[in-house]
Amino acid sequence: MRDGDAPPPGCVTRPVWRVEGGRAADELDRLAEEVPVAMHVDGASFAVMMASPLDIEDFARGFALTEGLVPSVRDIAAIEVHEMLEGVRVDVRRTGPGAADAPPADRLLPGRSGCGICGSRELEDVIRHPAPVAAGPVVSHAAIERALRGLRERQPINAFTGSVHAAAWATAEGAIVRVREDVGRHNALDKLIGAMASEGLPTRDGFAVITSRASYEMVTKAAVAGMPLLVAISAPTALAVHLAESCGLTLVGFARPGRFNIYSHPERLADAATG
Amino acid sequence: MRDGDAPPPGCVTRPVWRVEGGRAADELDRLAEEVPVAMHVDGASFAVMMASPLDIEDFARGFALTEGLVPSVRDIAAIEVHEMLEGVRVDVRRTGPGAADAPPADRLLPGRSGCGICGSRELEDVIRHPAPVAAGPVVSHAAIERALRGLRERQPINAFTGSVHAAAWATAEGAIVRVREDVGRHNALDKLIGAMASEGLPTRDGFAVITSRASYEMVTKAAVAGMPLLVAISAPTALAVHLAESCGLTLVGFARPGRFNIYSHPERLADAATG
Repeated sequence: MRDGDAPPPGCVTRPVWRVEGGRAADELDRLAEEVPVAMHVDGASFAVMMASPLDIEDFARGFALTEGLVPSVRDIAAIEVHEMLEGVRVDVRRTGPGAADAPPADRLLPGRSGCGICGSRELEDVIRHPAPVAAGPVVSHAAIERALRGLRERQPINAFTGSVHAAAWATAEGAIVRVREDVGRHNALDKLIGAMASEGLPTRDGFAVITSRASYEMVTKAAVAGMPLLVAISAPTALAVHLAESCGLTLVGFARPGRFNIYSHPERLADAATG
Repeated sequence: MRDGDAPPPGCVTRPVWRVEGGRAADELDRLAEEVPVAMHVDGASFAVMMASPLDIEDFARGFALTEGLVPSVRDIAAIEVHEMLEGVRVDVRRTGPGAADAPPADRLLPGRSGCGICGSRELEDVIRHPAPVAAGPVVSHAAIERALRGLRERQPINAFTGSVHAAAWATAEGAIVRVREDVGRHNALDKLIGAMASEGLPTRDGFAVITSRASYEMVTKAAVAGMPLLVAISAPTALAVHLAESCGLTLVGFARPGRFNIYSHPERLADAATG
């Protein structure tokens, strides 16, 4: 490889046998890295997740918020990232009311994945009820199109490997302002939410775009973060639509050039109401 | 809807606003269901996962095997499925050496997701080392093509909704023999493995095809189940390739009509060695 071809952070190259039209050839393929990230909260192990080794502080901050470990980013006293032989350990230390109130002690048990149901011991704990989201802006079809186009140009790991998810924040006019990428879609959204929280960017004045499906957990995370509108490139699940409806979030799915579906609260789409 | 249009199990229809070319129209959209599934082992809560409400017994059986909760399907005494208001509870009761040996008591703590790192308390527990897989068959390019074509025709939920994953088992000649679908890719693979175990289908005489990416957890599950060859339609991660290499599993990725990449152990591909 030439000097200019060094993989971007979070990516590696390795030899692969590429088979096409029945013939095999040696090539260098480009792969996304994936590492275990252990999240510790106030000294106790909370969850281990597989993630892209990038923006780990954002990840921890967003995860702490969307999992309800802290009520606000101000309740995070410190985040320390330790790169270890086996992966990454992140120590989140809480301050203020968060440390005493949330999570209850019996949620401080080892979890595994950033899917948004971390720490749930039983069925009845899994379905959370996020507070209703704010009214937020009214967005045009053109703004959604613009955000989809803008996001495609701002996914360096995916451009290199073709294999990672992204979550982005767009202004009401569809200008992309932040993007985070990860091998896991839950992690990408947590990283976006964490990045916005650390910069003090409000989550009520624009909309989120995700390159994946909109499962129940993705809508939960967006709603807990206060996002009024979530645009997914792929399909929602039935439970995700139900949740979006009940917490006032506008859920758009199958968003592709020239078309999309609105699954809940169409009043935030400028042209839909009159369509 | 006409009588003939009833959704298949695991799917629902609901109204949606479809926007295309700037115009909105009411339509009925087809969505995949998603429910919380709580896995209890010998009376203790182990994990809660979001899954498609189908083939729950297969799911429990496969999950118990790939998470190492039982060494063999013979160590499962009973599986009881309870449909509840909040979701599904599955009670797995172990017998024989399994109940005493695995998992250790400190893994019987609430987990969350079927991603394959359930029950890991710390970083060093996440990376498992599956036993080397058996030699297995040598497979031709044509067999892989045939399996990919065959799988596309056997995904009823995905055909209806366009939004779920599948995992399939194919003979060495590429004939699809079992398919399981789920909103989660880990669950689809666990359901396949559970279905094969309950029927006594050996995992060493063919290969698995998954419609998703090949992350670390997917390769772990395939290897623990003794599958020698895993074909993924999308990309592997770097860690997945590393694991496949070390446990002797042939990992094929980006498998599309006419082409695929071999990431490890190409000796199981008939034509690759001479390509």
